Amino acid sequence: MAERVLNVGLVGGGAGAFIVHPHQKAIHFDGTRRVVCGALHPDPEVALEEARNWPVSIRGYKSYDAMIEEELKLPEGERMDYALVVTPNHVHFDPAKKALEKGIPVFCEKPLTVTLEEADELVRIVNERNIPFCTAHTYLGHWTSRLSRHIVRSGLLGKIRWVDAHYIQGWLAGRAEDQGVIQAEWRVDPTRAGISGCGGDIGTHSLMQLRYVTGLEVTRIQAFLETFVEGRRLDDHFTVYCELDNGGKAIIRSSQICIGHKNDLGIEVNGEKGTLIWSQEEPEKLVIHLTGQPDRVYWRGEVQADDGFLGDLPDSLMAEPTIPSGHGEAFHDAFARLHRCFEEDVRAYQKGTYQREDGSRYAMVEDGRIGIAFLKAAVESNNNDHGWITVK
Amino acid sequence: MAERVLNVGLVGGGAGAFIVHPHQKAIHFDGTRRVVCGALHPDPEVALEEARNWPVSIRGYKSYDAMIEEELKLPEGERMDYALVVTPNHVHFDPAKKALEKGIPVFCEKPLTVTLEEADELVRIVNERNIPFCTAHTYLGHWTSRLSRHIVRSGLLGKIRWVDAHYIQGWLAGRAEDQGVIQAEWRVDPTRAGISGCGGDIGTHSLMQLRYVTGLEVTRIQAFLETFVEGRRLDDHFTVYCELDNGGKAIIRSSQICIGHKNDLGIEVNGEKGTLIWSQEEPEKLVIHLTGQPDRVYWRGEVQADDGFLGDLPDSLMAEPTIPSGHGEAFHDAFARLHRCFEEDVRAYQKGTYQREDGSRYAMVEDGRIGIAFLKAAVESNNNDHGWITVK
Amino acid sequence: MAERVLNVGLVGGGAGAFIVHPHQKAIHFDGTRRVVCGALHPDPEVALEEARNWPVSIRGYKSYDAMIEEELKLPEGERMDYALVVTPNHVHFDPAKKALEKGIPVFCEKPLTVTLEEADELVRIVNERNIPFCTAHTYLGHWTSRLSRHIVRSGLLGKIRWVDAHYIQGWLAGRAEDQGVIQAEWRVDPTRAGISGCGGDIGTHSLMQLRYVTGLEVTRIQAFLETFVEGRRLDDHFTVYCELDNGGKAIIRSSQICIGHKNDLGIEVNGEKGTLIWSQEEPEKLVIHLTGQPDRVYWRGEVQADDGFLGDLPDSLMAEPTIPSGHGEAFHDAFARLHRCFEEDVRAYQKGTYQREDGSRYAMVEDGRIGIAFLKAAVESNNNDHGWITVK
Amino acid sequence: MAERVLNVGLVGGGAGAFIVHPHQKAIHFDGTRRVVCGALHPDPEVALEEARNWPVSIRGYKSYDAMIEEELKLPEGERMDYALVVTPNHVHFDPAKKALEKGIPVFCEKPLTVTLEEADELVRIVNERNIPFCTAHTYLGHWTSRLSRHIVRSGLLGKIRWVDAHYIQGWLAGRAEDQGVIQAEWRVDPTRAGISGCGGDIGTHSLMQLRYVTGLEVTRIQAFLETFVEGRRLDDHFTVYCELDNGGKAIIRSSQICIGHKNDLGIEVNGEKGTLIWSQEEPEKLVIHLTGQPDRVYWRGEVQADDGFLGDLPDSLMAEPTIPSGHGEAFHDAFARLHRCFEEDVRAYQKGTYQREDGSRYAMVEDGRIGIAFLKAAVESNNNDHGWITVK
Repeated sequence: MAERVLNVGLVGGGAGAFIVHPHQKAIHFDGTRRVVCGALHPDPEVALEEARNWPVSIRGYKSYDAMIEEELKLPEGERMDYALVVTPNHVHFDPAKKALEKGIPVFCEKPLTVTLEEADELVRIVNERNIPFCTAHTYLGHWTSRLSRHIVRSGLLGKIRWVDAHYIQGWLAGRAEDQGVIQAEWRVDPTRAGISGCGGDIGTHSLMQLRYVTGLEVTRIQAFLETFVEGRRLDDHFTVYCELDNGGKAIIRSSQICIGHKNDLGIEVNGEKGTLIWSQEEPEKLVIHLTGQPDRVYWRGEVQADDGFLGDLPDSLMAEPTIPSGHGEAFHDAFARLHRCFEEDVRAYQKGTYQREDGSRYAMVEDGRIGIAFLKAAVESNNNDHGWITVK
Repeated sequence: MAERVLNVGLVGGGAGAFIVHPHQKAIHFDGTRRVVCGALHPDPEVALEEARNWPVSIRGYKSYDAMIEEELKLPEGERMDYALVVTPNHVHFDPAKKALEKGIPVFCEKPLTVTLEEADELVRIVNERNIPFCTAHTYLGHWTSRLSRHIVRSGLLGKIRWVDAHYIQGWLAGRAEDQGVIQAEWRVDPTRAGISGCGGDIGTHSLMQLRYVTGLEVTRIQAFLETFVEGRRLDDHFTVYCELDNGGKAIIRSSQICIGHKNDLGIEVNGEKGTLIWSQEEPEKLVIHLTGQPDRVYWRGEVQADDGFLGDLPDSLMAEPTIPSGHGEAFHDAFARLHRCFEEDVRAYQKGTYQREDGSRYAMVEDGRIGIAFLKAAVESNNNDHGWITVK
Repeated sequence: MAERVLNVGLVGGGAGAFIVHPHQKAIHFDGTRRVVCGALHPDPEVALEEARNWPVSIRGYKSYDAMIEEELKLPEGERMDYALVVTPNHVHFDPAKKALEKGIPVFCEKPLTVTLEEADELVRIVNERNIPFCTAHTYLGHWTSRLSRHIVRSGLLGKIRWVDAHYIQGWLAGRAEDQGVIQAEWRVDPTRAGISGCGGDIGTHSLMQLRYVTGLEVTRIQAFLETFVEGRRLDDHFTVYCELDNGGKAIIRSSQICIGHKNDLGIEVNGEKGTLIWSQEEPEKLVIHLTGQPDRVYWRGEVQADDGFLGDLPDSLMAEPTIPSGHGEAFHDAFARLHRCFEEDVRAYQKGTYQREDGSRYAMVEDGRIGIAFLKAAVESNNNDHGWITVK
Repeated sequence: MAERVLNVGLVGGGAGAFIVHPHQKAIHFDGTRRVVCGALHPDPEVALEEARNWPVSIRGYKSYDAMIEEELKLPEGERMDYALVVTPNHVHFDPAKKALEKGIPVFCEKPLTVTLEEADELVRIVNERNIPFCTAHTYLGHWTSRLSRHIVRSGLLGKIRWVDAHYIQGWLAGRAEDQGVIQAEWRVDPTRAGISGCGGDIGTHSLMQLRYVTGLEVTRIQAFLETFVEGRRLDDHFTVYCELDNGGKAIIRSSQICIGHKNDLGIEVNGEKGTLIWSQEEPEKLVIHLTGQPDRVYWRGEVQADDGFLGDLPDSLMAEPTIPSGHGEAFHDAFARLHRCFEEDVRAYQKGTYQREDGSRYAMVEDGRIGIAFLKAAVESNNNDHGWITVK
């Protein structure tokens, strides 16, 4: 059953980058994927230098254009099997589009693009070519996110009335962008980050968690974008009141100025018959409250379908490789799960058996597009005295 | 230094009542106050019957009018020293007004009244007569509420940018009002509860906690009132986005349909230099996050002023009678602290030395009035497509 | 059905005392009991002075001998109905014995006595006279202690294999006894505290919690008593490995030198089918782990018998007066519950209907005696190179 | 700076194995190490079959003897650079010895060996040859284990009085060994596991955590080994009272029959000036209690040396690759950190610059040996009516 190791090419990820590091670990995690090449920086010479500095030997390219062109000349097994796009937001669209057009599957950071038009274009190409594309919403990779999805969609909680999805951070409470923090610099720069700072960076994660777990869509919103740090050019605090397509309501609360919060992404789903609570900083567990029952705290690795409450658990969920509970999974494990699922699709794609599905294992290009549409509506509502705007 | 025991007269609190029970314990808690009489029910005969059923012998009256009149004929030391009003909302105003007009201090449940006009009238009388009046915002009685107030007002967190005050419950997720739950019945009935259900019952607590701790006032709001339970006549879910008078913003989130939440009142205050987090369900502690410091978890009974952070702690705070940490204080302790402080003011009032102060120990009549103004603005905003309304 | 207020007389509890304060609150808590007299200090003049300084007017006596004699001359309804003994350990026996011999019920602090002979004598008198006697093991008064007892004894956890009962504090990590802390002074003085410091003060609570919850008796022990603080004359750290009478084993871990621990009393019971965990610093909940089930977290006030696991809950448990969950009960509530149950027995005693029972509501004189026997065996084992000693 | 990828050969780890999986992920984690070959099973044919079933292509061998012999014939860069021994306990010694004698560094599971003589022999060889050897005490790999070590050794807590190191599990509460659970089968079989079950499997982890963090050695012990599950041939519950070489005392508590506990390894260190608490199930944080200070909760990724308490933090600690706090590290990250540090030493060894050091980054062969000596003393004490035995 041994297969060859799958090859990944990087777009972005040079020195000072952050998100490339967990991706790198997630790629190598299982021993069945590896990084083989990269266009690591917009400056061609820096790009080559960074490639030479990579911990192990990889093929460096001056640009992603060059990488796409040259890699395709290599024999299968040697050349890049999929591209990972980890550039600032404004450089997602172009490399993703070019790789897709050459038939190369793409794993792309979020928010998907800077404009809705670009997002629409990516959706079009992906659908036309039936090619694997992952929008990197990491937190879907937690096993408990998958269990949450199953529980809410199983109807155990009854009709969903209210959802609170939040992602609260504190790292931008001061002017980090003026203190040489590269990660801060581009995130607060409209030319690189797009129309929303906090909303784009983490509000989209809250939205995705809400949609992934509940299967509900946000139809109309009133949005409140604040910029608490003086002189900052984008929002650093982002609150949205939402109507859902089942008649329920939701709130999305995101902030980057709440000192003490780290990556406090969480979701609470309140249904007519019960509540589910999940937090990414304690991703090993989820809590269910059912009328007449005590709190039920489920731990990854300990969940049993025959507990009298959960009903049948999907085979796909139970078959996910995990470690015994009490030996925690965390961020890298979640990241690795996404790449592991994506690997499966890339292998199917190469064998000609790939069929796009419903986004139950990772976020699809359409999910990325909805994030962009949501941001657009949020900014419009905010600029319109916080009135109602339809998300479309 | 032994003083005579102070006498309390009850308005409301007959069989099926809830809030009278913690009040009763809070009154007796220290051995320096006791219940001596009551007009326990609107029906005169039931009122007398209920008084006869009281665990120990008290004077029963057919009505609060009768009680006020008759008690004043008794000698000092025997007669009621202050009145406790624990009726449904629509019966706060009249007994409170009548007692005050006879010079009897009043400890009154919240929300203060049903209309703003009534609230204005009580404010007027209390000021005119310089008489003790407490609006029963219990949670101010937690020692850690008082410490929170000191910390935020000391400037340790810098300028306040954002406040999240919430009070989430789940007990009205079903139609409790149709199942013989007296506490539910009147709370969802506009004729008894007033213009807002969830907002009036617990939203006002969130607001009070915000105002008490930060010293900031809410100036303008957009409000979202939901009624999730079909057929219910008042809101059971209440979200308000707020502008504060220092330029900061806040959210007040209240709900009674979130299964699993009990009395989940909490506040988080985010300043330019740090964050404070407090929750009434774990009232023994509060957490401070300061840039460059680990989380600092303070426990009631263990706090020391010379820790290099807190600065001087007010004598009044440190002198509050408490028990050593690890032996928890809870709801009854908080309730008792309010009555203890009120007792002090009543004794001063009887000696002619009472001066109204700033509400640092319990909520004043003005605080109650602001709660009513807030509810009025919230309903107006909600009815006006959630547009901005000024709180006044 | 109003009854007269029951009268309590204090032995001990003058200035600097600690435990009298929660007792005082617990006595007054319900409005059906009150303090009416006291012999508050061994020095007759101080005793009278302290009584004059009591917050409200009480009858002061120069000695407990005088108090017992004089009170009995007063008419029923005016005289003391029961005595509360809150002196240092070496002054428990004499006043308790004298009160009992005059037919006055006694509520006595723990450890019961200084010697086993004294304890035997009290047991003898109490049984002979069939008179109410409570050993003040406060923590039994938590509603969740009672629920724990029911769950373990119901067999839900199967046969009990292992019990970990601990009580960890940190307040004696330094030489508090040299810094004017009265509470420390007598606790580390063998002439006043008895043969064990930490073991007597808090080890006995661990033992009592174990026995109360499980119904098992400790038969044989190996004990390790440490004195970590130089110059201290009694143990400040106390570990005991136990054999139980059902063939199971247990550990009792107590310490007063673990900085950061406050009153960290807890118990974990491991049976063949499940585990129960309870902690007095979070007394509102208990956790049950059953094979194949998620953690089940029960909250006081939310427990329902028909949850498919608990089976029938005793009426006596469900009838205990409590407040809704989320409005916490804590130390004073637990203390009050003991006095409330004791009040019931005192009233029955006065009516001639009292029958001593099984200690399901508070610790009996026999429970106090077992604590003393346990301490004696622990010291003997420790002095005997930690070899096995039978508790008898 | 790019280096070639380092090659790892596996001894053990075929189907049904557990610990090989986290090792595999830890090996590949950084992209600088990989599995290239394996002798995966004692049965030669199964061994080859298992190798063919490995997710990617590796060289399969019939035995570790064959693997060691054949690999050495391959050119550097292709051949195995270090061996990972993940067999049951009784098959640690032979392959480790043989690899070491051929100059191949060894990463070996714990407990190190079955007898003390074997452990002594490995210590001798490793010292003689100055060759990298890691005993796989995973939990040292948590960043917070390293911070704990720094804090305790810095003297911040003062002289250490008492240490509580525990590792509690519940997975052997029933007869898992009779239900086809391979992991249970060999662990309770004296011929494969050695003289202690619970003590060997997890008691040694508690001991190692104690020694790693405090730098103290256990000198004398009284041990209590229990077998709660009927018919089991080794202990499933293991409690040891310890004397430490600084005059302090400690307890090591391990169990495998406490239902609900997963991998509950934790340590509490009580010094004269403060306390440190750490738990591997929440490895992102540690808590310090200092007299006069609130609880201080430190989070990996947020720790700053200039907080006024920690003093200088070692460069090596601060330079450890981690991800920002709030994006959790967990079991695989800890495992990977050990392999990453070991890789560094293997590379130095290959360059001839390796010097054995003090075990600050992973457990040395000597640490493994002390674990075996401890087990031997524990069994001896237990068999000797729990009397004192010196660990040597």
